[in-house]
Amino acid sequence: MARIPDDPFEAGGIAAFAEDLRAGRTSSEAVTLACLERIDALDGKIGAFQHVAPETALQTAQAMDGLLRAGTDLGPLMGVPFGVKDIYAVDGMPTTNGSLIESAEITGSEGTYVQRLKKAGAVILGKTKTVEFALGATGQNEARGTPWNPWDLETQRIPGGSSSGSAAATAAGMCAFALGSDTGGSIRIPAALCGLFGLKTSIGLIPTDGVFPLSPTLDTVGPLCRSATDAAIVHAVTMETPVPDTVSPGSLRLGLLRDFFFEDLDPEVEKCMDLALRALSEAGVTIVELNSGDLPDPKERETIFPPIVGTEILASLGVDRFMAGRGGMDSVTAARASVGLDVSGVDYALALRRHETLKRLADEAVKPFDGLISPATPMVALPAESLKDKEGGARGMAASRNTQPGNLWGMCGISVPIQQFGSDLPVGLQVLCRRGMDAHALSIGRAIEEIVGRPRMPRISGTG
Amino acid sequence: MARIPDDPFEAGGIAAFAEDLRAGRTSSEAVTLACLERIDALDGKIGAFQHVAPETALQTAQAMDGLLRAGTDLGPLMGVPFGVKDIYAVDGMPTTNGSLIESAEITGSEGTYVQRLKKAGAVILGKTKTVEFALGATGQNEARGTPWNPWDLETQRIPGGSSSGSAAATAAGMCAFALGSDTGGSIRIPAALCGLFGLKTSIGLIPTDGVFPLSPTLDTVGPLCRSATDAAIVHAVTMETPVPDTVSPGSLRLGLLRDFFFEDLDPEVEKCMDLALRALSEAGVTIVELNSGDLPDPKERETIFPPIVGTEILASLGVDRFMAGRGGMDSVTAARASVGLDVSGVDYALALRRHETLKRLADEAVKPFDGLISPATPMVALPAESLKDKEGGARGMAASRNTQPGNLWGMCGISVPIQQFGSDLPVGLQVLCRRGMDAHALSIGRAIEEIVGRPRMPRISGTG
Repeated sequence: MARIPDDPFEAGGIAAFAEDLRAGRTSSEAVTLACLERIDALDGKIGAFQHVAPETALQTAQAMDGLLRAGTDLGPLMGVPFGVKDIYAVDGMPTTNGSLIESAEITGSEGTYVQRLKKAGAVILGKTKTVEFALGATGQNEARGTPWNPWDLETQRIPGGSSSGSAAATAAGMCAFALGSDTGGSIRIPAALCGLFGLKTSIGLIPTDGVFPLSPTLDTVGPLCRSATDAAIVHAVTMETPVPDTVSPGSLRLGLLRDFFFEDLDPEVEKCMDLALRALSEAGVTIVELNSGDLPDPKERETIFPPIVGTEILASLGVDRFMAGRGGMDSVTAARASVGLDVSGVDYALALRRHETLKRLADEAVKPFDGLISPATPMVALPAESLKDKEGGARGMAASRNTQPGNLWGMCGISVPIQQFGSDLPVGLQVLCRRGMDAHALSIGRAIEEIVGRPRMPRISGTG
Repeated sequence: MARIPDDPFEAGGIAAFAEDLRAGRTSSEAVTLACLERIDALDGKIGAFQHVAPETALQTAQAMDGLLRAGTDLGPLMGVPFGVKDIYAVDGMPTTNGSLIESAEITGSEGTYVQRLKKAGAVILGKTKTVEFALGATGQNEARGTPWNPWDLETQRIPGGSSSGSAAATAAGMCAFALGSDTGGSIRIPAALCGLFGLKTSIGLIPTDGVFPLSPTLDTVGPLCRSATDAAIVHAVTMETPVPDTVSPGSLRLGLLRDFFFEDLDPEVEKCMDLALRALSEAGVTIVELNSGDLPDPKERETIFPPIVGTEILASLGVDRFMAGRGGMDSVTAARASVGLDVSGVDYALALRRHETLKRLADEAVKPFDGLISPATPMVALPAESLKDKEGGARGMAASRNTQPGNLWGMCGISVPIQQFGSDLPVGLQVLCRRGMDAHALSIGRAIEEIVGRPRMPRISGTG
């Protein structure tokens, strides 16, 4: 068995690679090759990728090495290999949207986000698996296959979704980072369950052209990264702004979302949250407990999400295509989409109006704070097997319980790994910030990361 | 029979009044009193007002006169009496929304537009009649009464709608100007049929808080005025920007909307359009005939308007309130709103998406031009009696045929009176401009007004 190369981004992240690259200690070709070899060795077991493009990746990496030698420096993502969730269009690669239903033309052609990263010299390794049409939070996909959580490949645990493959690929060291999308938590949930840093951007901040329109009202995009620092670099390159710096803990004032957000926590989640909150307080962060009346009722997710998302996915797919193809769809996704068949125009309009109102109310409620914190998910990664009975299915449905309110309130947010406080499986701390405060969310993430440290990525042995 | 005072704004409009006021030749009290006396004498026959507030109007006028004497000049609308369409909330006045259904709380409390005009010292005379919930183009209202077109009080002709009372009141010299709203033509149509200048602003330019939400997607507000110059002043005060100046005819390039927009014109409309176009050309305006393929298909109004407006009015009213009250509603309005009962969420979502696409397509198509021109309505003011049979009803439905495309395409627009080219009844020339180009639309209106002149307002004898 050939030796599997080490994860080239584990030790120092994107910044260390960028330094090494410019010092001539490594090359884009070397790290891209290492990623491709890791995909080759590990992805048979994990299943993170839907499509790998080794030749164009290596050619691009070589071109970046040549360009840098020729004196053109495209910045901190130059030569960095990454993965793209398969609801994004990438020139020359197939788009499945995680479905057996042909729907590539709905996603359209390569969009702004991918193009900005290409122009910055980043190297696309391939397309990562996704929950079908990005509609689901566990990561499971009966139609195109479920990537397994790299933290426990013995048990086959869910990676979280819908950006399941992007999370699994990054956690398994098969790419430096990967792009996801977050309509109800689909970046923050897999980030939490795979021990990554996830950034859900504000609606409208990064254009979503060339991304499957699950719900244009709620869809947002963003990266899954090993660290807040990596995410800050990716974000700065995307937005062409300076890299968000860390902030002093003493200047931070965070509102703690109790009640609803702390119900039915797995013991590991409860323990890591308690200890992380204590560490933040000791470092000087002000944490203010919020009462349930201080914010709109997060339970409204149950009445607002289904009519908006169910209606909008059917408007994107077309009812005829959905009816013709639903038999071949993942059963959970098909059931969620079919909700849209019975939503009246008036009910959809009322849900949209309530969403607008909630955004305004949340804007006001969050004003006294830098952000709101909670566990990102109530649970650690569940064994896939456990979701098959009724009780387990309900537990799976709770994966998005703590993230959906952020979407409903129009906020941006992050998930920061905190399993180092005493859990074998990853646990995520969520911070939600006022819409438009994305750079500040990253700065808060960096500050928290400095206080709580970073977990090591999982040790994985190859399949062959 | 007491002598009816002359219309104080007929001769010189708002600018001349402002000059006379500051020269001590008139007062806000004098013109407000003249308007109130004209309302008293004429409105029994016309029925433009739903509610008149003579005491607060006179008190406000006296306060403005005092304030000016004390050295505070609030600008060109200081002391100017105006009317407000009764789908706007005004503190201390009832809101009927033109309906017998209690719905004032949906309209809410006094909003931005009215408050800006109040702060500029303008004097509210009262609330003007409206088509029920502003949903209709002829001006008729079986529930709260139809204002009659001041140009022919013998025959009882429609004023156009839905800003029917605002148009009738301004044309009859009962106010300096009046506020309207335009969701499918409800400012431009009554302006055209009553010989006024009407401005439909771009979506979002002027907030619509405190205005009944007929269709938040399409609703816009704006004034009905005697002239483009008056409208430019009202707009400048509203936006706190300089008064849009006229532009040189030689610099203007207008696209002529033929085909659809010129079908089935009344002979007077055809004649006035032809002569007005000739006058514009002779003055140096470049007029380019557009083919039907140059723009999105205006017939899409038939498939996009009903699901959007039908759904949104029911979302505003609530289905229960509508079902309970529809028996007492204007029959045409009730039938239009009831369309929304059968619209699915998916169809509504698809209509919204198509509307977004049409806005983008129209933005592109209009780029080579300062604006697009057409007749504002295919007809002059129809006798109300003629609308009662099937054929007449269909003709009435055509009132919004030429204006709805502008809403559908997300444009701003104006209607300029051109009956002086040979019609006893008013005829309107419509100019549509790219969204956001409202000030330019007013400049074009002023240029056209200089070229074609202004008709006299109708001569009306009182009811005693």
